[in-house]
This record gives sequence, C-alpha cells and structure tokens, in this order.
Amino acid sequence: MAERITPRSEDFNRWYTDVVIQGKLADYSPVKGCMVIRPNGYAIWEKMQQTLDRMFKETGHVNAYFPLFIPESFMKKEAEHVKGFAPECAVVTIGGGQPLEEALYVRPTSETIIWSMYKKWIMSYRDLPILINQWANVVRWEMRTRLFLRTTEFLWQEGHTAHASFEEAEEETRKILEVYRKFAEEYMAMPVITGRKTESEKFAGALHTYSIEAMMQDGKALQSGTSHHLGQNFAKAFDVTFQDKDGSVKHVYATSWGVSTRLVGALILTHGDDSGVIIPPKLAQVQLVIIPIWQESTRQKVSDFTEQIYQKILPHFAVQLDSRDQYKPGYKFTEWEMIGVPLRIEIGPRDVDNRQVTIVRRDNRQKISVGADSLVPQLKQILDQIQQDLFQKALDFQKANTYSINEYEEFKKILEEKSGFIEAHWCGSAGCENKVKEETKATIRNIPFDRLKEMGKCIICGKDSEGRVIFAKAY
Amino acid sequence: MAERITPRSEDFNRWYTDVVIQGKLADYSPVKGCMVIRPNGYAIWEKMQQTLDRMFKETGHVNAYFPLFIPESFMKKEAEHVKGFAPECAVVTIGGGQPLEEALYVRPTSETIIWSMYKKWIMSYRDLPILINQWANVVRWEMRTRLFLRTTEFLWQEGHTAHASFEEAEEETRKILEVYRKFAEEYMAMPVITGRKTESEKFAGALHTYSIEAMMQDGKALQSGTSHHLGQNFAKAFDVTFQDKDGSVKHVYATSWGVSTRLVGALILTHGDDSGVIIPPKLAQVQLVIIPIWQESTRQKVSDFTEQIYQKILPHFAVQLDSRDQYKPGYKFTEWEMIGVPLRIEIGPRDVDNRQVTIVRRDNRQKISVGADSLVPQLKQILDQIQQDLFQKALDFQKANTYSINEYEEFKKILEEKSGFIEAHWCGSAGCENKVKEETKATIRNIPFDRLKEMGKCIICGKDSEGRVIFAKAY
Repeated sequence: MAERITPRSEDFNRWYTDVVIQGKLADYSPVKGCMVIRPNGYAIWEKMQQTLDRMFKETGHVNAYFPLFIPESFMKKEAEHVKGFAPECAVVTIGGGQPLEEALYVRPTSETIIWSMYKKWIMSYRDLPILINQWANVVRWEMRTRLFLRTTEFLWQEGHTAHASFEEAEEETRKILEVYRKFAEEYMAMPVITGRKTESEKFAGALHTYSIEAMMQDGKALQSGTSHHLGQNFAKAFDVTFQDKDGSVKHVYATSWGVSTRLVGALILTHGDDSGVIIPPKLAQVQLVIIPIWQESTRQKVSDFTEQIYQKILPHFAVQLDSRDQYKPGYKFTEWEMIGVPLRIEIGPRDVDNRQVTIVRRDNRQKISVGADSLVPQLKQILDQIQQDLFQKALDFQKANTYSINEYEEFKKILEEKSGFIEAHWCGSAGCENKVKEETKATIRNIPFDRLKEMGKCIICGKDSEGRVIFAKAY
Repeated sequence: MAERITPRSEDFNRWYTDVVIQGKLADYSPVKGCMVIRPNGYAIWEKMQQTLDRMFKETGHVNAYFPLFIPESFMKKEAEHVKGFAPECAVVTIGGGQPLEEALYVRPTSETIIWSMYKKWIMSYRDLPILINQWANVVRWEMRTRLFLRTTEFLWQEGHTAHASFEEAEEETRKILEVYRKFAEEYMAMPVITGRKTESEKFAGALHTYSIEAMMQDGKALQSGTSHHLGQNFAKAFDVTFQDKDGSVKHVYATSWGVSTRLVGALILTHGDDSGVIIPPKLAQVQLVIIPIWQESTRQKVSDFTEQIYQKILPHFAVQLDSRDQYKPGYKFTEWEMIGVPLRIEIGPRDVDNRQVTIVRRDNRQKISVGADSLVPQLKQILDQIQQDLFQKALDFQKANTYSINEYEEFKKILEEKSGFIEAHWCGSAGCENKVKEETKATIRNIPFDRLKEMGKCIICGKDSEGRVIFAKAY
C-alpha cells in the first residue's frame, strides 16, 4: 500500500505490474513462470467463472473433469497438435519414487485425453452431441511470462464437444464465440472484434479458429477467447466413429474452445487507471463500500446512521462496510480504489443531518449526494450507468485508435508512431502475413465477421483482396 | 444402461463400481490411477463445492490459487511433511524440452508453497489472520485405486490459515471441523463422528488432526474430512514471523483443512441402493424429473398438462422434463433412478383427468398422488422429508452397527463376524494401537469429542483409560 503506482504515461508496462502487485491481485511465486492469484484477483476470476458457467449451461453444456496427465503416446497421435504443444510441456518422469515406463505430460490442453474417452462413450448418433466443459489448470512452459497475461500455469475452461456433422460442429463453434462476445462486452464491458484467425494463427489441430480480439489501453491487441472447429482430426487420430441414422459409420466432428485467467489481465488493461484496477459492476464481488467518516464527537451518530444505510443496502447489492478504526478515511479510499470497487459511499456527520449519503464513482470520480429514502433504486441506476460508461469509453477508445490504411509505408509509419488496430487489405497468403510480422511485429488478429465486402489490393504484394483484416501488435 | 447392477448382498465392492460406472458418474482413464469424473458425478461435486464455498465465505474465508508445482527443496523443509508426502509424489523433471535444474513436485497438498508466500505477506499482527481456501487438483501416487475413494489425482479444497496465537488457530481448526460436520449431516445426510486422530494417524507436519468419520453401508469407516492444527511447524520451516502488538517477534500459527471428491464416493456408499445412487435433495442438481406417459391417442392431452405442471414447478425446483420419444417410460424410470434423482413425477392420462400427478420417492419407492393445485408446497415438504429420512436411516444404521466392547477376544470376534464401529478403551499408546491394526486391520478412527468420561481398561494391555475410542476397518 505504501508504494506508488507508476502512471501509465510514464511506463505502461510497469503501471500494469504495479496495479497487479499493489492491488494484491496476484504475486510472483518461487516457481518459475507460475503466479499466485491472491484473493482480490481470484474474486474477479470467480465472478467470471460463475457468469460463464451459467451461460454455458444455458446453452446446453455440462461440466466434467479429465486427468491432469496425458500419456506421451497420446500427445503424438495428432500430428499438428504434437508439433504445436509438445515442445512447451512439463513432463512427469517419476511417480511414487519410481521412473515411469511412459512419460506423462502435464496437460497443455485436453483434446487428446478427452478424445481417448469419447472413443469409449460414442457408438451411435444417439450418443451425440456431447457438450462437455471443463474448469481446470493447464501448463505451457513459457520463457517470458507476465502476471495473468502469460504464465506457465493458468486456469481456464475448455469446452470439448462432439457432433454428428460438420454443420452442427460449425454451429457450435460460432455459438460459443457469441457467448464469449456477449460475456466480454456485457460483463467485462470490453468491446471485441469477432472473426476468423488466419491459417498460421489457428489452433494446432483445428480446421479453423475463431477469436474475440480486444484493444488494450496501449493500443495493443489481446486475444481474449478462441473457439476451434476441429473437424474430424481428433476423431481420426483416436478412431472415434459413430453409426449414423442411415446405418453408415462416420468419424465424429469436434469443437474446442476456451478462455482463461488471462481475462483478468484484459480487464485491468482495458479499464485500469493510475489509481488501480476498475472492476465493472457486473463482475465486482464487492460492488459498494461504505466508509463512515467521524470524529470522536460525531462517532455515535455517524455509526448509527451508517448501520441503517448498510442494512438497507445489504439485501440488494454486494456491499462491504469498512469501519476499521486503525485507518483514516483517506487511506481507505486509496485502498478500495486500488482494488477497483465501482462505488464508494461516504457518510459524514453532515450527511447524517441531511439524511443523505455521498456516493463517489470509481470510474470518473463523480460525487453524487443521494437521499437515504431513494438510495436503493439510485444505486442500481448508477451501477448500470457505470457498466455502460465503461463499455462506451472502451469502445470510443478502440474506434479512435483504429486506422484504415491502404499503403504499406503508411502502415509501417502508424505502427512506429502510434499504436492501435489497422484495417488493411491482405491477399490471403502466409508469405505476405509473415513479411508484415517480421518487419513490423504486427500480426493479423483476425478476419472480422462483419467486415465490408470491399475490393482492394494487398498492402504487401498488391494482389486482389475482398476485404480488410485487422493487423495489430499483440500481447 | 443395458448392464445390471450387482446387488449389494452379492458383492458390495462390485455393487459400488457398478453404480459409479453404469450411472455414468465416473470412468477409468487411460492414465494409471486417474479417473474421469463424468457429468453425472461432477454435478454432485459442483453442488458440494457451491455449498461448502458459501459456508467458508460465511465464516470469513476467501479463495486464492497457488501453483501446481512445488520445488523439491521446499518439500524438504518440514521434516515430518517430506517423510509423509515425498514418496507418493509425481515429479516433473523436464520443462519446455529441457531437463530442469531443480525437480518440481506436483502438489500432494500445498502447505509448503503457501507458507513460502505467507513469508512475503506477513510482517505484523495487522496482517493476521489470513483465512485462505483453495479449490484445486492434487496428486498422490497410489498403488491401489478406487473410483472417487482413492485416486492418484483428485479434486479438493484446502484451507490454509495463519494466526497470531495458538488459541486462535485452535479455534479455527475446530470451527472448520464444525463446518464439515454440518455439511456432512445437513447436506449429505450422512451422520459423522467428530473427534481427534491419534498421533500415528495425524497429518504429516501437524500438532494434531481432527476428523469427521462416517459409517458406510458395509460397516466400514470413511474419513470424510480433516482439520489440522499445524502449530508453528510450517512457520518455523519457512521462517514466517510477525511483530506482535507488544513489539515482540513470534512465529505464526497455522491450520490446514480439506475435503475432496472422495465425498462423492461417501455419498454413494451411504445412500446408494441396488438401483443406483440416491442423491439427497439438497445436493441434487436435478431434484425432480417429470416423465409423461402417453399413448398416441392421449399424447396431446398428457403433453399439454405436463407442460402446465412443468411451468408451475420450474421457478421453485431444479426440475427436468424427460419427454424423449425414443425411450419407453420404464426405461426412463430405471435411468433416472440409477443417477439418484430424489423425486419422479409421472403424468398419465388418468392423472390429467383428475388434475393430479403421481409422485414416486427415489429413496423408499413410495407413490403419492398430489393434486395440481397444492403441488409446489407438497413437493417442498416431500423433498424435506426425503432429506430427513435419508439422514435418519443412515443414523439408525450407524447406531445399530456400533458395538461397545470391553474384551479383546470379543473385539476380534465382532470384526470377523460383523462389521461396524467398535467403541473400546485404549491406553493411548502407539504400541497397542499398532497391535490391533496388525492383528485385525482395524484402526482407531478418532477419539470422539463427545465421548463419555468413563474409566476403563485398555482392551490390549489392560492399563487405565479415561474413555472409549472408535475402532473400525476403514476405506
């Protein structure tokens, strides 16, 4: 608490780390690349989990749990998959004091172990679809890590579904991307671009991958969720077939999809300010904090009124009363601001006299006096307004930092001088995509679903293009 | 579904496995000793998690997440702890394709990694208490595994708290055991004996361990939750001190406590019958299933009435409507019984004529006709009754199979001929405890908190004893 948060204008990366560490959202652990998620940070993840879990269940999914360990031979069954994941795995070679006959990979993702089970469970079209989600930890060995954004171990959910047809799997892949978009925009108040990843950026083992991409306050992109159509790749690797209605035997179609604790980082990078994180009301485990302000002479009267107000609010909101005696109000303000509680209610002697409270919005510091009698509906309205305003502010920022560019020279200049998303034409070749990446470090974030059909020329090779894609430097 | 569940009277162990596998609660995985928790089983664990999580939060605890991996050197810091746990660990020796300089143990429990963090976080008495819980997976290499009851990987919660005094830590240890007792008895409908473990059965690294012990239907005991007072052992091993109010510097006091997916096994073994598992209403993700029974001629009328009933119930209970056409009612009955849904509502043409439904209790097969108008309050009452009756039945069973024995010969005879708990006098020595274990396989489950103060003679050595302890064969 004593330390200062580096302002964003001074050093954006240090600002981020300061917000995480000083807000006690997470901490470095003694295990290389692994983080500790502290209670303030875990509370955000818990609200994300609850919300997403409800959304998954509403769309017909159920939860299950598969083993942490994957036998080495399983990892190797899908050629693209092993190429993509095996090099970044943690490998168990000793168990119960004995060397293992076959090494066990700590799951970097669970397609292989899950499809080995689906082989047991799927016989007929009657067994389909399977709509399973798993909440779990996964491990991917990372050289350069950043709290929440890139860690060796992280928490996530991974959906793994099995379908009788390509079309059904495609529908599922898109349905889940829509769940992710809705969650990002309506709960995290974070606008996203939905679209398809390019061939070189798709999941190792997928036919194609869809993503939601968000713009952080430094103009960089953050891939916030992905949904993969796996076609029959894993079904073929694990020989999972079913007898269809017409008696024919076919390989099963698959999807997988996930979001992770990375979203906590995305939330900080989208809404945080120089005082700390700002949590959108819908994801706040504490939506309101009440801080009484008293002198010895006014203590009793402030305390009594505060208790009344607290009891009035308690049934309607997630509220916390901070009546700790050992800290001054100013200290408490700073502390609650740092962890992002959306609204603060101050109650001083004058408020008591006027039967009102003073409300301070975390996002824009606006102070509002509200009478005790109309408090509950007013609070509800203000919280809704904060949720909307956070989204609108982020959307305005995204739009203001998105450039439509037709020339590669201008493209490069923008990436040097500014930061943000660039909408540009691209011919579709991996060669041009790679050239941009090598020369500018910008990658194609995705090919937006809602892009205009607009004929143009690839900014690299000049060949025809049917529409613009989103380029950006990314986390 | 096609297979038959082995009756308990024929082979209790096979009955258990049949219930788990055929009810699709869990399945064997290709990874030795690791299970797959299927949606029907995971739904039970989810309800357990939600309930316990609420109880932990109501008693002031917060959630956090610590790394899966523990550096080998950390494991070795607490002498008793390493002796107890290191031999049963899975060890990662390769990461990102390279041999690791220091091996990483997959956590068998998290005291060491957590106390290495508490050293960073605790300076002063103001930083205490820390009341953290973690929901996580852990790995303990097991030679002989059983679905839910003993698996190499399992899911659990582990609380790790830090306190300024012995007394406070003791209070926490007891408070949590009470949470566990309440959860077991009021939610799982499973009566338990609360008490202290003997020295030889306590947690590796604890001062003492408290447990809840339940009796399964075969008379064997199942340790269902433990709460450990760790004293200053881990604080000393990791050098965690704090400055107290009086300025003196002291080592911190610790507790840890946990329950696991083993509880799903306990629930099955307590309430299951020859048709499958029976889930107590408070832990049922589906409390009621509605099954319409129609012929082609009555289809429309039954379907309309069923929809009315479904809509009436939906706001009040977790209800599912099974109107699948491809299965006959009898098949559906068997299926829903197997997965333990507490109440079935049958609606046939005659029910429609009488504006009533037929309710069938899963636990005792009782059939009750209830008029449509009084349905909601009646269902509530019946569900409450099932919850109570399940507990009472289990309690009656426990009492009927508990023997108070004064002679070792009789003790041995009971263990050979019957099964259950034996209350007997014990002098307190590890020698006598071990002799019983070697000769009969029975262990001291715990020293009950509420045992009578009663002078007696140790059944082994004849020395004085102040009260009886609980002996039993255990899972």
